[in-house]
Amino acid sequence: MATVRLWSDAEVEGDPAVKAVFDDIRRTRKSDFVNNFWRGLANDPAQLKRTWESLKAIMVEPGAIDPLTCELIYMAVSATNNCSYCIHSHTAAARQKGMTEAQYGHFLQIVGMAAQTNALVTTMQIPVDEAFQVNG
Amino acid sequence: MATVRLWSDAEVEGDPAVKAVFDDIRRTRKSDFVNNFWRGLANDPAQLKRTWESLKAIMVEPGAIDPLTCELIYMAVSATNNCSYCIHSHTAAARQKGMTEAQYGHFLQIVGMAAQTNALVTTMQIPVDEAFQVNG
Amino acid sequence: MATVRLWSDAEVEGDPAVKAVFDDIRRTRKSDFVNNFWRGLANDPAQLKRTWESLKAIMVEPGAIDPLTCELIYMAVSATNNCSYCIHSHTAAARQKGMTEAQYGHFLQIVGMAAQTNALVTTMQIPVDEAFQVNG
Amino acid sequence: MATVRLWSDAEVEGDPAVKAVFDDIRRTRKSDFVNNFWRGLANDPAQLKRTWESLKAIMVEPGAIDPLTCELIYMAVSATNNCSYCIHSHTAAARQKGMTEAQYGHFLQIVGMAAQTNALVTTMQIPVDEAFQVNG
Amino acid sequence: MATVRLWSDAEVEGDPAVKAVFDDIRRTRKSDFVNNFWRGLANDPAQLKRTWESLKAIMVEPGAIDPLTCELIYMAVSATNNCSYCIHSHTAAARQKGMTEAQYGHFLQIVGMAAQTNALVTTMQIPVDEAFQVNG
Amino acid sequence: MATVRLWSDAEVEGDPAVKAVFDDIRRTRKSDFVNNFWRGLANDPAQLKRTWESLKAIMVEPGAIDPLTCELIYMAVSATNNCSYCIHSHTAAARQKGMTEAQYGHFLQIVGMAAQTNALVTTMQIPVDEAFQVNG
Repeated sequence: MATVRLWSDAEVEGDPAVKAVFDDIRRTRKSDFVNNFWRGLANDPAQLKRTWESLKAIMVEPGAIDPLTCELIYMAVSATNNCSYCIHSHTAAARQKGMTEAQYGHFLQIVGMAAQTNALVTTMQIPVDEAFQVNG
Repeated sequence: MATVRLWSDAEVEGDPAVKAVFDDIRRTRKSDFVNNFWRGLANDPAQLKRTWESLKAIMVEPGAIDPLTCELIYMAVSATNNCSYCIHSHTAAARQKGMTEAQYGHFLQIVGMAAQTNALVTTMQIPVDEAFQVNG
Repeated sequence: MATVRLWSDAEVEGDPAVKAVFDDIRRTRKSDFVNNFWRGLANDPAQLKRTWESLKAIMVEPGAIDPLTCELIYMAVSATNNCSYCIHSHTAAARQKGMTEAQYGHFLQIVGMAAQTNALVTTMQIPVDEAFQVNG
Repeated sequence: MATVRLWSDAEVEGDPAVKAVFDDIRRTRKSDFVNNFWRGLANDPAQLKRTWESLKAIMVEPGAIDPLTCELIYMAVSATNNCSYCIHSHTAAARQKGMTEAQYGHFLQIVGMAAQTNALVTTMQIPVDEAFQVNG
Repeated sequence: MATVRLWSDAEVEGDPAVKAVFDDIRRTRKSDFVNNFWRGLANDPAQLKRTWESLKAIMVEPGAIDPLTCELIYMAVSATNNCSYCIHSHTAAARQKGMTEAQYGHFLQIVGMAAQTNALVTTMQIPVDEAFQVNG
Repeated sequence: MATVRLWSDAEVEGDPAVKAVFDDIRRTRKSDFVNNFWRGLANDPAQLKRTWESLKAIMVEPGAIDPLTCELIYMAVSATNNCSYCIHSHTAAARQKGMTEAQYGHFLQIVGMAAQTNALVTTMQIPVDEAFQVNG
């Protein structure tokens, strides 16, 4: 159970600021379904608006990285942060954006490999090679 | 400073099992440079071999995900795990594989956004929507 | 399900060392309710006593930080550590100590913002400014 | 060393979008000093603007939580995320906003206690008490 | 619910590559029971084989560290990574390998203590003593 | 640089409460060397005393787990929490208590393997088998 109230559609209808964001989510995603994350954020309309606008700018509008790769990066962060909800929602989103099972298998291999080498490097406290210390 | 000895090229030359892996790293990467991670792993030749073979299979050989996207996923995990060494080495690798500064900017936006929404979801303990609970 | 047995009140009654701690928890909190955490720790009476005495000294007895702020800090750590149980119990405690919904909304904003900037800083490996390197 | 270029004041002067944000940071903080985080974000003017505006709304403008408590929450998240840069910058900010050494001592006690009980709860997989499952 | 399909025994029978690994798991563990982790990995036979072979080499075959201590280390990592599944499976494995309740109690004390001092050290940003900077 | 002052021996001499703890550390460890962690904690004598007494009870006094295994568990938690200081100090302590390089190699293998399987399990959201849900 959440630590906050999840807004029903009826409650959303009664609050113009929240309704405006929900309408934009539905329009943008071309779907009536609005997931629980936004229903929890609705308790703070300013935070709801700021979060949706950032997410839309970063994950929906055309950018330098294609939409499926965006989801794979989001999944990688969410998995490493152990956010069960986010793993479920972004794995679903990736599949909707065309992730094949072969790609998902490769993704899992990379995430497991990175977690392993991260742990080995950290435990051995390997110093950064000079060759890597050249920035942008 | 590392908690293990980092093997010099001279030491590598004197151990056939370690040398075989270092030779394959050099051949595969078409470069003489072998970074500190492998020089630390060299203390355990079996672990060195197993780790390199997995990494080669997952990150070098052709797979369902293209090489640059593989690096972006690796970077996302490494950043979230706070592995300074891995962030440096895989950001360098991504640039070598063609990551543009616009792509890196977009990558940073996604990593920041995911970390933020992960934290919000976790703090509010949002329950997973039924709609997301449909597996492969 | 827990990996340890959670002690019932009847079991607590039968062990004087555990009972002494449970009695003090009830007296201190002016409530009969003793939550599952202590029922799990009861398997190790010495650890139970040490943990309760530290918690009481830090979170109950008057200190330099007021009780509600103490809970907000506890919540921030628990959320970042992804401890579902601790998020629930300390959010409830904060509400009991007077946290308003406006304060909770602000808290969520800060936790999300901090998680985002932490991730950005770590991914970019920003070096600490000299100006910050002046200690107490 | 950062994985991105840190913008010098001269470079900032040459980019109106970046300069506008830096000017607002200086005006808002009543100080000429702009720390490295913003100099790294400057590589992506849109992200720089969005991040500063969110931070200003959440951490500078009057809100339901007082400025010093905001910093303590930010420090707690940053410490738990192991963000060395953020720990340094927000501990400095908290001291500037009046954090006493007694308060800092109490803060450390809470952060250590929370980390300990988080670990105990997670290792024992303690189930959430029904009493805590009452939301907002 | 998992984000992948968990293979039933009937499905395993129909795929020789997966069956070979499951047969070896059953033979090695002298038990018919194969837990869900392997049923999820079965979707990628190469990853299944590689993971089982590494696990067998590290956790089953005789090594420099005795089997129970191996499990305690595995449990410590899994608890700190907050992997609920892994905490359950490796705590069960440790008990099967002879972990007493007194040892489990001591284990919990160490995990809690380490989490606490890790948090204190990180928050205070304590620099590594020269005395500790002598590697292998 | 630390965010707190690290107490010199001269300062310790001038504060009886701090001196009493430092004297006990030296006596217990049969060594004059007191590492930086305690010099940082010295700013809060009550926290210093409580932390040392817990550490001594858990890590020094005879318990159900032998001293070297205690250090391996401590190292595993510290590595997973990415506490550089703690990794260095407890790896040094483990070597002092007799950890061989073969044992350290095996330890690294386990830590890497656990991190990898933790990540795979979490990403796939594998449900806990009923067989594991039998507690103490």
